[in-house]
Amino acid sequence: VTGPGPGAPLGVFDSGLGGLTVVRALLRRPVRGSIVYFGDTARVPYGNKSPATVTRLSLEALRFLEHQGVRALVVACNTASAVAIDALVREASVPVLGVVEAGARSAARATRSGRVGVIGTRATVGSRCYERALARLVPGVEVAAAACPLFVPLVEEGWIDGAVTRAVAEEYLAPVREAGVDTLVLGCTHYPLLRDVIQDVMGEDVTLIDSGDAVAEEVGRVLGESADAGGGETHRFFVSDQVDRFETEMRRFLGEAPGEVALVDQTDVPWYDRPAWRRRQEHGTPGERNDV
Amino acid sequence: VTGPGPGAPLGVFDSGLGGLTVVRALLRRPVRGSIVYFGDTARVPYGNKSPATVTRLSLEALRFLEHQGVRALVVACNTASAVAIDALVREASVPVLGVVEAGARSAARATRSGRVGVIGTRATVGSRCYERALARLVPGVEVAAAACPLFVPLVEEGWIDGAVTRAVAEEYLAPVREAGVDTLVLGCTHYPLLRDVIQDVMGEDVTLIDSGDAVAEEVGRVLGESADAGGGETHRFFVSDQVDRFETEMRRFLGEAPGEVALVDQTDVPWYDRPAWRRRQEHGTPGERNDV
Repeated sequence: VTGPGPGAPLGVFDSGLGGLTVVRALLRRPVRGSIVYFGDTARVPYGNKSPATVTRLSLEALRFLEHQGVRALVVACNTASAVAIDALVREASVPVLGVVEAGARSAARATRSGRVGVIGTRATVGSRCYERALARLVPGVEVAAAACPLFVPLVEEGWIDGAVTRAVAEEYLAPVREAGVDTLVLGCTHYPLLRDVIQDVMGEDVTLIDSGDAVAEEVGRVLGESADAGGGETHRFFVSDQVDRFETEMRRFLGEAPGEVALVDQTDVPWYDRPAWRRRQEHGTPGERNDV
Repeated sequence: VTGPGPGAPLGVFDSGLGGLTVVRALLRRPVRGSIVYFGDTARVPYGNKSPATVTRLSLEALRFLEHQGVRALVVACNTASAVAIDALVREASVPVLGVVEAGARSAARATRSGRVGVIGTRATVGSRCYERALARLVPGVEVAAAACPLFVPLVEEGWIDGAVTRAVAEEYLAPVREAGVDTLVLGCTHYPLLRDVIQDVMGEDVTLIDSGDAVAEEVGRVLGESADAGGGETHRFFVSDQVDRFETEMRRFLGEAPGEVALVDQTDVPWYDRPAWRRRQEHGTPGERNDV
């Protein structure tokens, strides 16, 4: 792996707004230097798209951020991390840190019983990525996973507590609670906003793992050597739709606007070297496309 | 307006699966001939995207269906119909029938009190399209509109009844019910699947208008002259993601699979003549882009 030096910015990629929780965690840590964020708000959510489509969109985001000269890519989106991490690592010219691997490592450190719960989008849970990562880290681990598709729209609607959200959480979390887990991975960047309800339903003894916090910690460890390499810390934020809404949410999430927000017209092609990896994807292993 | 003759297929465009309710309504009516459907499942939902992005995606769908030789375009997606109908009519070489105009006409015929409710996505309600259409049809009409962003994810999760859905409906419909409407437009193709809960919350005296039914009826009236013009009725369905899921839902919605489903790689460009209208959009009236 070669690429830009330690003074270059850190790239953060998410399907939309949720990755701002990762930005917040990064800004609170000693790893400084500037951040370049891309949120694919024109095509959010990724959680109910096919692995082939999520992979294609993720590779487009990688190319865009590479063109911004990033020194590493943090994949804040659990769905992209779940289904596209191998393709991203293979195609990237810089180190790639996924939220799933980081979250799994954090859960592996936290569990005492070896029974771990995972909640996420349908795509994340369907990929069984946390099961695979945890199995490598905790011999004999038992994983209980549940897809919670309504959590993201509930957060986006601002219904982060109240009777409806409580009832939805009870329904989704029942199988995970019954499995007797002592640790629960919040495998979607939106879910920490429902932390209070989730903790309440799961019980106080269950440790909740914020996978966004986990990846921010990992960045500190992996890229720690560049801790002082930052320049003026001019962060830049790019979204593919709804600049205004992103600016509002950024202030809400971060308590400030740490940088400019600009529109990237994601359907404007070519704005990166798409043909090479597209040809590989299209003529790759059978079933790689649309294996929903 | 010029274009293909009466033997050509009818184009139906939706952001995803929801337009199948319009297909079902069309298949039950005397207007036969074949249907070419495009569902933009790679970029669904449209309801929380900006008007500029919804317009761009809608124009891409128009170009694609024109290339399939359709004789008219039915815009089954309320959000696309709400924010992009003027651009579609301006750019189209064939007649364009929007679900909003049809739904408004149907509501105008149904109301006795002149108080009409409208529910839809945030984008549809924000556009105030139904208010404008109804004001032209019913002098002095009073419209009470409510955005119901959780209805689509609830339908997609299959939670079409039960306590959670009932509680969400109570919350969203309260202001519309309090406005004393006698007619309620279901301004999103997913909402007819929640008809029982909505009718229950609104009360039996309120007439529910299925805008998909309304546009199918309009097709019969506007294109009635081509009622016998159909050929072998080979319907074709194109989606931009998740062919398998679409096939499953098609059987569920229609009770059969009336045609083949194929993948259109929506981010493969150029597959239509994009530059001309893009240039117009980009150099159009100020504020046309990202006026969220």
